[in-house]
Amino acid sequence: MTAPLDRLPDAIAASNAALRDAHQYDLDALTTKLDRRGLDIDTLIDQIAAFTIAVPSWGTGTGGTRFARFPGPGEPADILDKLDDCAVIHRLGRASPRVSLHFPWDGDDPDALRQKGDALGLGFDAVNSNTFQDQPGQAHSYKHGSLSHVSAEVRDQAVAHNLRCIEIGRAIGADALTVWVGDGTNFPGQQDFTAQLDRYLEAAQAIYAGLPYDWRVFIEHKIYEPAFYSTVVQDWGSSFLIASALGDQAQCLVDLGHHAPTVNVEMIVARLAFAGKLGGFHFNDSKYGDDDLDSGAIDPYRLFLVMREVLSAERRGMTLAHMIDQSHNVTDPIESLIVSGAEARRCYAQALIVDEDRLVAAQADNDALTASETLKAAFRTDVEPLLAEARLRSSGAIDPVAAFRRSGYRAAVTALRPAASGAGGGIV
Amino acid sequence: MTAPLDRLPDAIAASNAALRDAHQYDLDALTTKLDRRGLDIDTLIDQIAAFTIAVPSWGTGTGGTRFARFPGPGEPADILDKLDDCAVIHRLGRASPRVSLHFPWDGDDPDALRQKGDALGLGFDAVNSNTFQDQPGQAHSYKHGSLSHVSAEVRDQAVAHNLRCIEIGRAIGADALTVWVGDGTNFPGQQDFTAQLDRYLEAAQAIYAGLPYDWRVFIEHKIYEPAFYSTVVQDWGSSFLIASALGDQAQCLVDLGHHAPTVNVEMIVARLAFAGKLGGFHFNDSKYGDDDLDSGAIDPYRLFLVMREVLSAERRGMTLAHMIDQSHNVTDPIESLIVSGAEARRCYAQALIVDEDRLVAAQADNDALTASETLKAAFRTDVEPLLAEARLRSSGAIDPVAAFRRSGYRAAVTALRPAASGAGGGIV
Amino acid sequence: MTAPLDRLPDAIAASNAALRDAHQYDLDALTTKLDRRGLDIDTLIDQIAAFTIAVPSWGTGTGGTRFARFPGPGEPADILDKLDDCAVIHRLGRASPRVSLHFPWDGDDPDALRQKGDALGLGFDAVNSNTFQDQPGQAHSYKHGSLSHVSAEVRDQAVAHNLRCIEIGRAIGADALTVWVGDGTNFPGQQDFTAQLDRYLEAAQAIYAGLPYDWRVFIEHKIYEPAFYSTVVQDWGSSFLIASALGDQAQCLVDLGHHAPTVNVEMIVARLAFAGKLGGFHFNDSKYGDDDLDSGAIDPYRLFLVMREVLSAERRGMTLAHMIDQSHNVTDPIESLIVSGAEARRCYAQALIVDEDRLVAAQADNDALTASETLKAAFRTDVEPLLAEARLRSSGAIDPVAAFRRSGYRAAVTALRPAASGAGGGIV
Amino acid sequence: MTAPLDRLPDAIAASNAALRDAHQYDLDALTTKLDRRGLDIDTLIDQIAAFTIAVPSWGTGTGGTRFARFPGPGEPADILDKLDDCAVIHRLGRASPRVSLHFPWDGDDPDALRQKGDALGLGFDAVNSNTFQDQPGQAHSYKHGSLSHVSAEVRDQAVAHNLRCIEIGRAIGADALTVWVGDGTNFPGQQDFTAQLDRYLEAAQAIYAGLPYDWRVFIEHKIYEPAFYSTVVQDWGSSFLIASALGDQAQCLVDLGHHAPTVNVEMIVARLAFAGKLGGFHFNDSKYGDDDLDSGAIDPYRLFLVMREVLSAERRGMTLAHMIDQSHNVTDPIESLIVSGAEARRCYAQALIVDEDRLVAAQADNDALTASETLKAAFRTDVEPLLAEARLRSSGAIDPVAAFRRSGYRAAVTALRPAASGAGGGIV
Repeated sequence: MTAPLDRLPDAIAASNAALRDAHQYDLDALTTKLDRRGLDIDTLIDQIAAFTIAVPSWGTGTGGTRFARFPGPGEPADILDKLDDCAVIHRLGRASPRVSLHFPWDGDDPDALRQKGDALGLGFDAVNSNTFQDQPGQAHSYKHGSLSHVSAEVRDQAVAHNLRCIEIGRAIGADALTVWVGDGTNFPGQQDFTAQLDRYLEAAQAIYAGLPYDWRVFIEHKIYEPAFYSTVVQDWGSSFLIASALGDQAQCLVDLGHHAPTVNVEMIVARLAFAGKLGGFHFNDSKYGDDDLDSGAIDPYRLFLVMREVLSAERRGMTLAHMIDQSHNVTDPIESLIVSGAEARRCYAQALIVDEDRLVAAQADNDALTASETLKAAFRTDVEPLLAEARLRSSGAIDPVAAFRRSGYRAAVTALRPAASGAGGGIV
Repeated sequence: MTAPLDRLPDAIAASNAALRDAHQYDLDALTTKLDRRGLDIDTLIDQIAAFTIAVPSWGTGTGGTRFARFPGPGEPADILDKLDDCAVIHRLGRASPRVSLHFPWDGDDPDALRQKGDALGLGFDAVNSNTFQDQPGQAHSYKHGSLSHVSAEVRDQAVAHNLRCIEIGRAIGADALTVWVGDGTNFPGQQDFTAQLDRYLEAAQAIYAGLPYDWRVFIEHKIYEPAFYSTVVQDWGSSFLIASALGDQAQCLVDLGHHAPTVNVEMIVARLAFAGKLGGFHFNDSKYGDDDLDSGAIDPYRLFLVMREVLSAERRGMTLAHMIDQSHNVTDPIESLIVSGAEARRCYAQALIVDEDRLVAAQADNDALTASETLKAAFRTDVEPLLAEARLRSSGAIDPVAAFRRSGYRAAVTALRPAASGAGGGIV
Repeated sequence: MTAPLDRLPDAIAASNAALRDAHQYDLDALTTKLDRRGLDIDTLIDQIAAFTIAVPSWGTGTGGTRFARFPGPGEPADILDKLDDCAVIHRLGRASPRVSLHFPWDGDDPDALRQKGDALGLGFDAVNSNTFQDQPGQAHSYKHGSLSHVSAEVRDQAVAHNLRCIEIGRAIGADALTVWVGDGTNFPGQQDFTAQLDRYLEAAQAIYAGLPYDWRVFIEHKIYEPAFYSTVVQDWGSSFLIASALGDQAQCLVDLGHHAPTVNVEMIVARLAFAGKLGGFHFNDSKYGDDDLDSGAIDPYRLFLVMREVLSAERRGMTLAHMIDQSHNVTDPIESLIVSGAEARRCYAQALIVDEDRLVAAQADNDALTASETLKAAFRTDVEPLLAEARLRSSGAIDPVAAFRRSGYRAAVTALRPAASGAGGGIV
Repeated sequence: MTAPLDRLPDAIAASNAALRDAHQYDLDALTTKLDRRGLDIDTLIDQIAAFTIAVPSWGTGTGGTRFARFPGPGEPADILDKLDDCAVIHRLGRASPRVSLHFPWDGDDPDALRQKGDALGLGFDAVNSNTFQDQPGQAHSYKHGSLSHVSAEVRDQAVAHNLRCIEIGRAIGADALTVWVGDGTNFPGQQDFTAQLDRYLEAAQAIYAGLPYDWRVFIEHKIYEPAFYSTVVQDWGSSFLIASALGDQAQCLVDLGHHAPTVNVEMIVARLAFAGKLGGFHFNDSKYGDDDLDSGAIDPYRLFLVMREVLSAERRGMTLAHMIDQSHNVTDPIESLIVSGAEARRCYAQALIVDEDRLVAAQADNDALTASETLKAAFRTDVEPLLAEARLRSSGAIDPVAAFRRSGYRAAVTALRPAASGAGGGIV
């Protein structure tokens, strides 16, 4: 029997063969069109290929809500399975050579992780610490907080876990830690806002002190959930305050879905870049709250506008960590992660072809209509041929989801992996 | 050893003894004050005592989020434990003589339920059907919907479950069914809005056809969660459409937290009353989404304004089902349910003392300031002495939470009940 | 001196000449691409050309906020100037052969209006009544409401104005009346929600009674502004209630920006179509409130999803009135209206090319990812060549804004029209 | 004929006489109740009397929306009239001894302002600069921005106006400048976020350089309006960035209505206090956007929670500027300002009586329910007798609105002042 991962090459080849002619036609037409603007297609393809986005290990399993989790077939049983799935995603989509791990979900065996990563050709992006759940056998509960808990013992336990995450991370070649906590309150008065932040800062400083000199720590804010009246790191303002208090190695991470309704997220990205504190992203899309939907599925123009700021920051020399953070409740997670990586690249590619000269001139002239139309013109350019060509040139698939389906990977792992339980959400 | 429930009478007596003098002073002072306005204290107390609100069986256990659930000590292990806890709530707070059950969570043994209810002196309010989770051994999954699923088999299964809920409900003396489904979509295009509603309606009609002549069915809308792009019954407009299509026994249920941000919920209550389709409530409070916080904990004035509409509808002859629907993640559920019942009553009492003559005159005169001040004057009246007196006159506690803590009930059941697992939320 | 309007033909010709080759290349490439899917380009162009959208007379002047209004050069001084500007918009963009008038802003001389319209080749869409402002010499003030005012005299005055609007509308060949009122409250208690709706309904019935047999009346809802606590027709549910109470000639009008944050507007369109009460649209875009920004400027995918529902409703036989309702505060209104009409057409064109067979199959299969990608594939198709060709075939401009700027129209009218005052907003 | 202001003493005396007995009874009852908690009524009354809040000169006129402004009778014709009205507000309510002026609305004659203030016994709080409107004869337009405009000439003009405001402010005894600008964009791409902030900062530094050593400058943020896609100072994060860049004399001003929906405003207050950058407030209430409704009219508990943070900051030694910023569209502005000042004081008084020991113990114990109930207990205490007594002890009115109505002041000034025009909002 063919090992599941070994099914990919043939599937890619067969899928590409069927699509190659149409792809080439579309690429040629786009080349002609971009050439009118003096844009070189090969340069663009190289720039696109250089944009990568880490896949979250947890994202390869089916997500859930507090109401229920409905597992899919062939769910990964452990981190090794998850890394296999991540390898599938990258081999097809060529956009995600790194994986972002989450501890303790992903075990405590850095050697095994590194070996597996090496074997699959995958690297590791920022590691994530989990102090928003209790684990069996844990000494102290995080029910009432972790880094900001009133009890020093709980805070120390949470700090120690973060330091262990750094240790594992170093051993596997990561160079950043993402800290997101669920700490907050459900009732006015439950905790004092200021005292809580004081405690958080003290604990964060203890983590920061354990950071290797060449690491970064990313502070991730979120307006609500799991806390429903206040959260300790509720917005970019608090995240910025904290990262500033910690020091130069501390930066802010923007999860696109962690803001109040109507907030201009691309502007927050710009502001953090302005302040020199933009560190990275958790990409996803959302309509209501932290919906963790597939990137670009709800509001692709917003993703494009964020990518414009990303590109602008990178052009000014910033190094940003791009990661996906989504909950795939009704789709095959592998497919969603492939498509989401492609969507991020699509918007990045569209940002690359913005007519910056025309834009700058329109801004100088207060010609809002032309400025708007300049962005829209880039956004409505169908850059799919560029994305496909970037994949093709690195042995990926013109249509990665089609190739994935053709490969039979999901059925193959379903036969090998244990069935996942359909245990309910947090409600029961 | 004293059975846990038997600890209450002494605790109530002792607690009341300590508080009685101050209570009487405050009651006298309030009597004098209300007397100036010609309001009779005894009439008010009777009206307050007549306002009751059902406790949800599921609410006696600790709730959770998709991130985690942190159980508390002495969690109820089954519906019989839950009913014991409901009895505690009512004996102390005197506001919740009925329990709202949820199936299949609450088993399938109506005789046992009825017997237990009779033994505890508790009745049953609307029963709730659950088709938003899969149960072990279930033939078809609700992953992609229930009443609106594309497959007739899934819809039939969901309809059958609702009919079974009615059957159980009849056997235990309930007279209404609440239908809330998680059906919806996470992606634009995932389903056709219109076809999905057609399917929902056909299934709902099959349930309606099985409704006893003296029953009501409550349609409950929700803007989002667990579906994150669209839900089939997303707002009161759709709920009203559905209830109208079904017939006179179908009415709309308003959960205070199921609306878009900034929406005027009290106005929705008024509109449904206007349309003759207001059936009942799920009370809770919220700041961001469906936070399911304790009633009145975040915005007590909004609860008061809702209660004004409740009172207005009842004065026009409508019979409304009042139920609590909250998730108690960080408090003792018994305490939260006692306090929430009292908060609902508090706002109802404040609604009762609004100077309606002054208000109507101000409205006729377009005197917005006086109208506003008339409501505020009622709202800022501290009616706690009335609530306490209503409890006292029916053998309850002046301060029910104090009495509960004094009783040692929680410690007693903790010793008797198995420890609950701290299993995580929907995320892992 | 050349009359301003006479400058257009040469400008169009010259602008088109410069763009024709590139346009033809892009059109050919798109033809090839759509041909793969079996789509006929000529059929599509005809369907696109058949989609038209009325321009609002008031939209040709610079808009403002309550803080300020900053007029632009060459503002139209009266309705005749405004109709000239509307003619420019249509001659360049070919998407807006009708104008939506607003009374009393647009005077009281139907003959002059009709003559001018005929001379310019413009027709008239739904007329709009204004009872949210006081006019000099008006007997009663609308400060505290119009159709729902506590005073019968004020209500009668507002009804009479609506009847006069119908009269004017008949005389100029319109066949619908749009009723939007600012009625509502700023304070809880200011008015009784139910009594206010009763009064509104009675007044609306008086208007409805005056409706010619072949007319429609459109009820337009809005969640807030100018009233800030409640509005009488706050959402589609109330709009639907009202339109149902009035009768078959009453339908609901959806302004895309009149909803609570995060609300799924395309679903509301679908629900009103389901209920048989969808009448028309006020198109615009928004990020926060009723921002009245240019259509598709903020969230073009949302506009596409709305257009999908529009197309679906039209395919089921409904006749919908499409109108723009925007406030052009920082752009040349003529340019914004041209672009906005094109944006609406763009999304309509993208809706036309959705692979419906693939979509329906994906829905039947609960394949959310394919369904989503099917919509996205249509949305990211750059249909600009189709739009340009549709304009070209009816003597319009390939790039209407470029042609407009080339024409010198704005400078020409600036020389002729009086300078507009920069009077402030409502704040001073 | 009695001068309008001279009508107050008799009206106050007569009104108080009618209410004194009931007031004394309620005060005694409350004294007894608070005494149980060891709270001294005289100390509380002194603390309440020490809390003052400035009245905005512009708030004495009727406000409007972009749709319309409906003036009331006896509108102030100029700043002298406005100061008279402010004197009425303070003489009745005793909470607002200072006025916040707005230039150029309030003229350019500091001597006249100071004389009038002295004559009325009124002082002056922070002065406000207006660069969001064009004034007749102004050299450059603010249509496309002021402090952040692309043109240095426009920026210079805006800076010069701010410096003039400081000059006037010094002459009248003010010691702070509030800078709020409408700068922002309506379209993605209209301006570059970063370049715009750079320009803003440079201009702000020029203003800061002109600040007297003992002055403060308050930076006021706002999420949207009049700009509808982005604003330069969009949230507290940007405000904090700016104030930090400027220096120690720059602080942040929080307008309660300038935030995204659902945002936890009291937490922002706490965060700015934490960062040492909390400077002051614009008080009002809101349900949807920047509704500028009367303080406490919509969500009084939120106002209380804000006041808790105010009190906490003041206890830590911060000096905060309290100002009202409301738009009185449907009420008599004098009445609304009296009531709003009283509401702010009410919440401050409720904050003063929070049982801090019990609260701190509950927080330490993670007893969220007790913590919540501790705040609620203070909030539901009817402190009206304390407020009335504080007024009474300084010659004010027990019921200031009743006394105002009895005085006939409005009718008297209506007879003297010219009728205001009912000019429309920004829309026409």
